[in-house]
Order: sequence, then structure tokens, then C-alpha cells
Amino acid sequence: MADREVAVIVGVGGGLSAALARLCAKEGMAVALAARNTDKLAGLVRETGAMAVACDASQPGDVERLFATVADTLGTPSLVVFNASRRVRGPIHDLDPGEVRESLMTTGYAGFLVGQAAARAMLPSEQSAGQSAGQSAGQSAGKAMGQGSIFFTGASASVKGYPQSAPFAMGKFALRGLAQSMARELAPKNIHVAHFVIDGGIRQGGDDPRGPQRGVDGLLEPDAIARSYLDMHRQHRSAWSWEIELRPWIESF
Amino acid sequence: MADREVAVIVGVGGGLSAALARLCAKEGMAVALAARNTDKLAGLVRETGAMAVACDASQPGDVERLFATVADTLGTPSLVVFNASRRVRGPIHDLDPGEVRESLMTTGYAGFLVGQAAARAMLPSEQSAGQSAGQSAGQSAGKAMGQGSIFFTGASASVKGYPQSAPFAMGKFALRGLAQSMARELAPKNIHVAHFVIDGGIRQGGDDPRGPQRGVDGLLEPDAIARSYLDMHRQHRSAWSWEIELRPWIESF
Amino acid sequence: MADREVAVIVGVGGGLSAALARLCAKEGMAVALAARNTDKLAGLVRETGAMAVACDASQPGDVERLFATVADTLGTPSLVVFNASRRVRGPIHDLDPGEVRESLMTTGYAGFLVGQAAARAMLPSEQSAGQSAGQSAGQSAGKAMGQGSIFFTGASASVKGYPQSAPFAMGKFALRGLAQSMARELAPKNIHVAHFVIDGGIRQGGDDPRGPQRGVDGLLEPDAIARSYLDMHRQHRSAWSWEIELRPWIESF
Amino acid sequence: MADREVAVIVGVGGGLSAALARLCAKEGMAVALAARNTDKLAGLVRETGAMAVACDASQPGDVERLFATVADTLGTPSLVVFNASRRVRGPIHDLDPGEVRESLMTTGYAGFLVGQAAARAMLPSEQSAGQSAGQSAGQSAGKAMGQGSIFFTGASASVKGYPQSAPFAMGKFALRGLAQSMARELAPKNIHVAHFVIDGGIRQGGDDPRGPQRGVDGLLEPDAIARSYLDMHRQHRSAWSWEIELRPWIESF
Repeated sequence: MADREVAVIVGVGGGLSAALARLCAKEGMAVALAARNTDKLAGLVRETGAMAVACDASQPGDVERLFATVADTLGTPSLVVFNASRRVRGPIHDLDPGEVRESLMTTGYAGFLVGQAAARAMLPSEQSAGQSAGQSAGQSAGKAMGQGSIFFTGASASVKGYPQSAPFAMGKFALRGLAQSMARELAPKNIHVAHFVIDGGIRQGGDDPRGPQRGVDGLLEPDAIARSYLDMHRQHRSAWSWEIELRPWIESF
Repeated sequence: MADREVAVIVGVGGGLSAALARLCAKEGMAVALAARNTDKLAGLVRETGAMAVACDASQPGDVERLFATVADTLGTPSLVVFNASRRVRGPIHDLDPGEVRESLMTTGYAGFLVGQAAARAMLPSEQSAGQSAGQSAGQSAGKAMGQGSIFFTGASASVKGYPQSAPFAMGKFALRGLAQSMARELAPKNIHVAHFVIDGGIRQGGDDPRGPQRGVDGLLEPDAIARSYLDMHRQHRSAWSWEIELRPWIESF
Repeated sequence: MADREVAVIVGVGGGLSAALARLCAKEGMAVALAARNTDKLAGLVRETGAMAVACDASQPGDVERLFATVADTLGTPSLVVFNASRRVRGPIHDLDPGEVRESLMTTGYAGFLVGQAAARAMLPSEQSAGQSAGQSAGQSAGKAMGQGSIFFTGASASVKGYPQSAPFAMGKFALRGLAQSMARELAPKNIHVAHFVIDGGIRQGGDDPRGPQRGVDGLLEPDAIARSYLDMHRQHRSAWSWEIELRPWIESF
Repeated sequence: MADREVAVIVGVGGGLSAALARLCAKEGMAVALAARNTDKLAGLVRETGAMAVACDASQPGDVERLFATVADTLGTPSLVVFNASRRVRGPIHDLDPGEVRESLMTTGYAGFLVGQAAARAMLPSEQSAGQSAGQSAGQSAGKAMGQGSIFFTGASASVKGYPQSAPFAMGKFALRGLAQSMARELAPKNIHVAHFVIDGGIRQGGDDPRGPQRGVDGLLEPDAIARSYLDMHRQHRSAWSWEIELRPWIESF
């Protein structure tokens, strides 16, 4: 178990999580997939040997249980990817406050819960107890190194607030702020935090109806995105990136 | 009543809201001040003739009541400023999820509630009913103009996620995403939405203990900030700004 | 002479420089207008009492003479605005290298020459001799204060490189880098450097043919822009901005 | 010859160009190295089998000859990397205008010359003749595809103008504007233009004197940077990045 890298992918829905699961499995990692509903993951689990865990990532207890299960079953994760999000659209005066709140919880707050749990798992034990270590932290400051990558999936809305899409802008901006803060805090502890701006539509299956009108390679291939995540995970720590944006060659920006 | 501009200032605490209240009153506006606790506003109310309204801006019902009261008592607001925020600090692994959630609610979600209520008040009535207007909206699209300014107060953390400050980064990034989305959506409806990046400490009273070490004008003067808010409110709509940052001359950036 | 503020406006062509000249004159400033060709300035000179100076701002000698003339005739400038630029467009493979070079010289390098001359005029004499002041600078470091504002006019192209417009992007990005570096360097010396992103078309005269299709206030009014320049010049130094963008309310961004 | 990829690396000095040359050679590419002075390249040429070409990249004629030589000797380049730059530092009032001009020419204008020559080489012949193709371009618009990657090396100064470093900010901002414009223009023609923000010191040789004080992996390893350039070159076009920043894990940002 100690020899295998462990990857945790949270928020399974579109093609990206599946592509990540396949690539991680191919690279020899043990994979855990977390989603609210794990029913539809049966095929992917069979294909990749991944473990599926039911988890509402906006609930602290669920996220805690997810990481405890992973630790017990697979070991310490070295790659955690947060993919969950919930989009609510509409003119600002029409939006339902309860839905806006849910969107912010799923897109932003859940990212915090997963990022925090990942950091706790990756930091050395004296720093991950969930409380200040006091004097002992000071004494061992020099050797307090963690290990691993924590990646957050953003969207065009992470860097540009579109009209009639305030809730998604709020959630995705919040997630980017979280990722940037965590990158600054954890990089010097040897934990690589990065944010991906996916600027364009991700192809959903081989017969995505949007495909033809976008033209050849006009939608992001999930496998191509996953490749860039893995490249980022493999970066040497003397030359880390905290953010990268990915878009189809024909996409306006 | 119809001749007087109406200003609503939400989140009263530091010196900025008081300076805004004074400047708006001096400019002849009727002013409403909204805060969780209005006890400490007595002096300011006496000085400016403002109306104080108790309001927890992260509660939809409170915000609704606030704007109903303003409409009934003072009239339609032409300037709404959202100043509320709640900062939580600490290493990512130490943060209490409940407090992070509260921070996000007060700093980000409350901004949405206030921004939405302001938009509803400023848009023409057929667009502000809180539901899609259907066919009639299409018919009157050409003349559907609103009026007024909605301003959000940000911080250095709005554009830079600092270490050990993930919750504040999340809330302030979210607020900026909201402001940018609303600016794009509402500008063509004649409503000026802007975001202010306050990059530095605001002087709290004449004897702020930080003053001497910062040197002359080393902390932002609340009156100077308020002046820039008013300049922005007075901008001609052929040359609007959606964002401006303000910092002391000696501040590093 | 000592009681009057002095404004220097470099690069006179569109409506912005004329509007600035009028507003500065109205505010009681003495105004100098610098342009390659001063013939067409006769009307504006008559109207504002401004001094017109022939100057190719991309030539070090010309810029030196301009500021010497201003110093001798009007006194030390407290506001210098650089408006010059030259746009070259075309597919990257088609561009003429000589024209690209000229564009970079007029849009970027000329900005440096004017910014440097302005800084020399505004810094205290021991710092503005054009060479390191050595020991004496160290001795008087505490009191070495300058005074004034140096403003640079940018465009949408200052922050976004458009296709088929590489030369203009190069020049305008360079000018923004200059402005940002100077802002960081000179703000602590009491000199306010700022950059304006003009995002949209500026109305050229009362019968600008683009006006009708853009709709009411769809082009930036030169007077409205000038107003924001003056507001920035009047900002209290405890709350300075280094950049602001201005665009018509109906402009997409 | 047709089977081998061809890489052109312009501006050889620090460790990055050598690392790129080694990695490209290892990947089976034919490599051309362009520098003002090729004397010091003997060792690298021997090691990698690269061709060394003397070239002052700020001279149109030199750049034209470089690309003609590469075309004749190695074939059409599929990867062109521009690394040249010239840094001039000092207080704004002290800078020598002639040196500022040279810095802008070497850091910015040379990037244009190399980028243009690369685009001409990579675009289909009817578009690369150095003049508008007129009607025929319209007729063949559908099939006018190019191929290859054009990469520009930036620095921290590309996105932040530091005090006392105006000339470098101008040159590096200009280069980024060029890269962004070219990325938007050429991506839809199947040419991948990207900009790299190197944020930190690059290790110069095994005994870089700065190494010990920066700590383990505290300076960017040239091989690690080169790896990210190659990853970017290999990105699938459905998920291209136009910019990435690289910094050591312990670097503040």
C-alpha cells in the first residue's frame, strides 16, 4: 500500500472526473471517487478499480468521513482534485436566495472543506491535528514538511463575472481565492496547490451534440485536460505553477 | 421626498460608513444606516439626520424589510453601499468550518442579498417584481431603464489570496465576482455597479494607535475614501468605472 | 506664477487633450500643450490661454526642451498627462517591422521620456539632477519629497492583446508597465502616478458619425473623461489610485 | 529531414536555453541556437548536435537570415522559443534614454521580429508571403491551417512593474502584449502561442552562489522549466494554455 500513490477525486459528473480516474489508474495510482450519488459510477469503478464513496462535499461530516475512509482503505492521498460545482443562472432580480446560497455552498464552501481535509492529510501529523500545535510547532518548524497536490477546477467564471450569472461567479471566484490563499500558505510546506481555469465546453461523451457546430477539437477533450492535471502534479517543486487555463484552439478569449 | 437623493449604507462599523453618511448628508441626501446593532449609531444619527435600521444582512428577510422600510420612509435609493464583512484567520488545517461558513455568508452572500434588493429597487417596476416578466418585458425592452449606483467595498484580499486567510479571500473574491457580474448586467440598464479595493488600513478615529508608526497619511482617511465613492457616483455614464483601488501613498503594492 | 498650478498635456489630437486643457484652464491652471504639429491648436490656444509647444515626444531632445520651456515660462508642473500613441494594425505576418518600431517608440518609449522629464521636474532638486546624488541623497532621505501627478492614457489594448493588433498591444502594455513601475517608485515620494484604461471610443466632435449607432452616451464624452482625471489629481494621498478604467455604460467588457 | 521536429531557440545565455536544447535534442528534434555571440556555445553544440547561428534578434535582417538558414538546413520549425532580454535598472530620473531604448528593443521588439518570422514559417505559404493575400485568402480560408508552437519567456516583471525597474517592465509587458495578441490571432490557425512567467531566479550552473541561501530547490531548475515548455508544446489543441507561471515552492508571490 505504501508504494502506491493515492488520488481522491471529488465531484463526479462530467467527463473530466472519469478521465482523471482513468489516467490516475493507468499511472498506477489507487483512486477514490466521491460523489453525492455513486449509483452511476458502477461502470467507471469496474473499469478503473476505483473506490466509490458517497459524499455531499458541502457537509463537514461527509468530507471528514470520506478522508477517513480513504486513509483507512487506500492510505495517504498524494493527489486530491475538487471538481464539484453548481450553476444557477438568471437576472439578478429574479434569483432565488436559497438557490444562490446552495450554489455558493457547493461551488465554494465545499471546496474549502475538501481542501482543508486534504491539507490535514498531507501535512505532517503534528500540524494536522486540527488545532494549533503551540510550542512544539515552533521547535520543529524546520522539518515540518508535507507532501502532495491539491487541485481545484475552475471555469471561465472564475476570472470573469458574466451577466445573469452572479451566483456562479461568486462560487467560482471564492474557490479561486481559496486556492490562491492555500497555494501561498502550503507551497513552502511542500504541498502543491493549483487552480485550473477551464475556459470552454468539455466534451460529454463521443456524441456530444455540441461537437459538430464547434468543429474539430472545438470542445475540450477530457483526456487532454486530465493530461495537464497530471503534468502539473509531476512538476518539479523548483518550478511550480499555481494556475493554468485551458481552452480549445478555436475558442475566443 | 422626490427631490432628495436617498443613500443606503449597509454594514456600519469602521470609519468608512460614518464618513459616507456624513458626506451624503452634506450633499443633501437622505441617509439610511443598516447594522446588526444600531445602539452605537446614536451619535451619527443625531449628527447626520440618518435613519438607523437594525439588519442582519445575511438574512433574506432582514434585507427585504430594510429596503421596504427605506422605500416607505425615504423613497427610492439612488446610492447603495455594501460595507459588511467578517474576517476569520488561521492556518488552513486549524479553521473551524462553522466560522468559515459564517464568514462567507457575511462577506459574500450578504452582498448578494443587498445587491439584489438594491437592483430590484432601482430597476423599473416591470423588471423588479422578483420574477421573469415574460412577454411584456420583451415588448418594453427599449425603455426599460433603471437608475442609481450600487457599490461594494472590497479589500486587498479581494484580488490577492493571502496565506492563513482563506476564509476572507473566499468571501472577498466572491463579492468581487458578484460586483463584476452585476456591473456587466446592470450597466446597460443605467445602474452603475462598482467595486472598491481598499488596500491598506483605514484610520479608526483621530487617535488610531497604528497612526504614528505608519507616518503622515499612512492610513486611509475615511473622508478621502468617501470622496472617491462620491466621485464615482457622480461619473457621467459615458465614462463609468467598474472598479477602483485606493491605498495610502506609502503603501507597498 | 507660484500660485498657479501648471499642467502639461502631451500628444494633442483627439478630443481628450482639448477637454483636459479646457478643464485645467477653468480650474485656474496654466496649461502647456505639446504636439508634433501645433498648427491645428490655434483655436484651443485662443480659447484656453494655453501655451503650444512643438514636440516629437519620442525624441529625447524635444522632450527636454519642452520641459525646459515650461519651467522657464510657466513654472514647475503639478500635472503632466501623456496622451500620445500610434496604432498599427494587420495580421502578424504582414506587419512592416519599421512601422512596428515606430509604433512602439511613439506609444511606449515617448511615454518613458515624458514620464522621466516629469519626475525630474517634480522631484526635489537633489534627486532630479539626472544622476545619482550619492551621499547627500542618503543624508536628506527623510525630507526628499516631491509633488505632483503624472498620468498616462491607456486603452483597452493596455490590458488585452487583440488579434491583428500586436504593435498597439506592445506599446500600450509597455506604457502600463512603465506607469506601474513609476507608481510604485514615486508614490512614497509624494508623486501620484496613474494609468487610465479608456475602454471604448472617444467622441470626436459633436457630429461624430459613430454616435448614432452607439446610442445616447455610447461614446466616451471627452469632458467626462477629463473630469475623472481631475478627480484623480485631487485625490487625498492617503487614498490614491494607480489605475482606473473608463467605459460607456453600454459597452461590453 | 521531414520526419524530425525542428526547434529554434533564440537568446542563449542563462541555463534555460541550454536545458531546452538538451531536452529537445533528447526528444529527437533538430535544434538551432541563435545568439549574438556563438563562441560560448561550442560545448552545447557538441553535446546536442545543435546548429549555432549568430543573430542580433533586434535587427530585422538578422532574424530573416536566421529563419532562412533554419529553413534551408533543418526544415520548417515546429517550436520557436524567444528567450532574449536586457535589463536596465535605476531610479527613473537617473536612467539613460539610450539604454532604455536598447532594453525595449532587445526585450520587446526583438520578440516581435522573432514571433513574426516564426509565424511566417509556420503559416501555410499563401499566408506567409509577407503581404495580404487578397481574394485568394478568402477563397481558401477554410483550409488555411498552420502548425507549430511559438513560446515567449517572461519574468515576474511581465505582470508587475517593480520600482527602479521601469525599462524592464516596459520590455516585458510589451512582450506579454505581443504574445497575447499573437495567441488570439494564431490559435485558430493551429499555431500555439504561449507566454511563460518565470517568477524567481533560475539556477546558473551547479554551484550557483545564490543556491545555499535559497535552500533546496529554491532556485528554478532549468531542466524543470524546460519540462514545462515541452509539456505545453505537447498539449492537445482542444485544451491549450496561453500562459503559465513557474516559481520555486519557497518563493513568495
